[in-house]
Amino acid sequence: MLTPETISSAANPLLKDVRRAIARGGLTSQGWCVAETLHLLEEALRSRCPVKQVLAAESAQQQLPRLPGIKLAVLPDALLQKVSGTETSQGVIALVEPPDWKLEQLFGGRALVVVLDGLQDPGNAGAILRAAEAFGASGAMFLKGTASPFNPKTLRASAGSLFRVPFLYGMDPALARTALEDNHVTLFAAVPSRPGIPLRAVADADLTAACALIIGNEARGVSRELRGAAQDVSIPTMAVESLNAAMAAGILLYEARRQRVHRA
Amino acid sequence: MLTPETISSAANPLLKDVRRAIARGGLTSQGWCVAETLHLLEEALRSRCPVKQVLAAESAQQQLPRLPGIKLAVLPDALLQKVSGTETSQGVIALVEPPDWKLEQLFGGRALVVVLDGLQDPGNAGAILRAAEAFGASGAMFLKGTASPFNPKTLRASAGSLFRVPFLYGMDPALARTALEDNHVTLFAAVPSRPGIPLRAVADADLTAACALIIGNEARGVSRELRGAAQDVSIPTMAVESLNAAMAAGILLYEARRQRVHRA
Repeated sequence: MLTPETISSAANPLLKDVRRAIARGGLTSQGWCVAETLHLLEEALRSRCPVKQVLAAESAQQQLPRLPGIKLAVLPDALLQKVSGTETSQGVIALVEPPDWKLEQLFGGRALVVVLDGLQDPGNAGAILRAAEAFGASGAMFLKGTASPFNPKTLRASAGSLFRVPFLYGMDPALARTALEDNHVTLFAAVPSRPGIPLRAVADADLTAACALIIGNEARGVSRELRGAAQDVSIPTMAVESLNAAMAAGILLYEARRQRVHRA
Repeated sequence: MLTPETISSAANPLLKDVRRAIARGGLTSQGWCVAETLHLLEEALRSRCPVKQVLAAESAQQQLPRLPGIKLAVLPDALLQKVSGTETSQGVIALVEPPDWKLEQLFGGRALVVVLDGLQDPGNAGAILRAAEAFGASGAMFLKGTASPFNPKTLRASAGSLFRVPFLYGMDPALARTALEDNHVTLFAAVPSRPGIPLRAVADADLTAACALIIGNEARGVSRELRGAAQDVSIPTMAVESLNAAMAAGILLYEARRQRVHRA
């Protein structure tokens, strides 16, 4: 750890930059992710994502892990609280260089790609990344119109999985479709179950070969562009639209993993 | 709808009562649930839970459904906003008489009971109720030390399922265990998967007979009292503790439903 710097003014340019990134739900002007808890700092270190700077409240300084070669700034508790604007920072904000993935890295092993097609809620997007890692997805695509992977809320909901699951973002749906088809991946679109209307249950679809699971917008579902290239699958439920998008994605990913283990 | 009343002061006793209920995460002093969106008002009506009173912001009045015989109070937008303290009220707060269930109602049909054993987060508790309804659970038990079913955040996360899924709350673990055993229900405790340590995967457990799925505290897991009476099951994941409690519960409920449909 380098000698800690002290920041005592809210007018400090770095603090203003971090506050803007949180408000905007994106990266700082230098292109760093804002990771708002001690846990996320530890996840970044464990995932070997370069930590560029740590901001710590005075009261949180003792809990910090070893930070070899990493810049540390210590702030009065009230000032750090003001920057994060939430109760959840726990007095630690880490600025992390986001990983930079290449398309082919999303298709490692037996491909299982999760496609976020217009999901609005960063909490849902992050929870999906977390489930993607848990069930061994090979990669994720954030299409245009989806919550940013660099929104601090996405990162928080991912519990650090965003530092490890290969992903691309801001992708045009037509380009995503081409990339998936070029990589010989079968496309499945998640559609809400409608009692009385027969839809293929996900347990009856074969998810053991290389495939992509497309999760649509919370209200509108999967875009026409991708749905046209995909097979519909649904999670049989007792009522219409009774699962939230993250829960539905988690169940599809679980089902893929279950099939792959059972039919291995 | 009765002739709307107008409330213009934050000192109004009803508003103060609602604000306290929200802050405390519980019922109003009259024992009513605080349902904070137009959607939840509609869900209460659809579920035939008695709506005792509706508070609506002036700007939201036009969107209200028919409210036959229901008291309505109209407030300036800023005042309603102040009461709800969130952006999410959408200008409507409904006060709803919570359903009152008997123990035997939790075991209807082929019993599938979800037991919330010390879950702290009301968002998780509500999401579990939503998944419970989606996958046809017969009932839910909120054990002592679990987030309150009457916390407005629980209700919101349940998307209205809390008005329909039979549940009991504040139950002592030993009494819950006795009630489950008396009803000939097989107990399964959800435990985190640990790579390298063999645990029974939930897909290999038989969830087709009457059973209960016990979901533990986010940090400590299932209590000793219940775990001693239950069979462990886990969701195979690639890393330790990589699912949140609501996601894990949703997947167990999905798995139960999948088995019941497939082996019917």
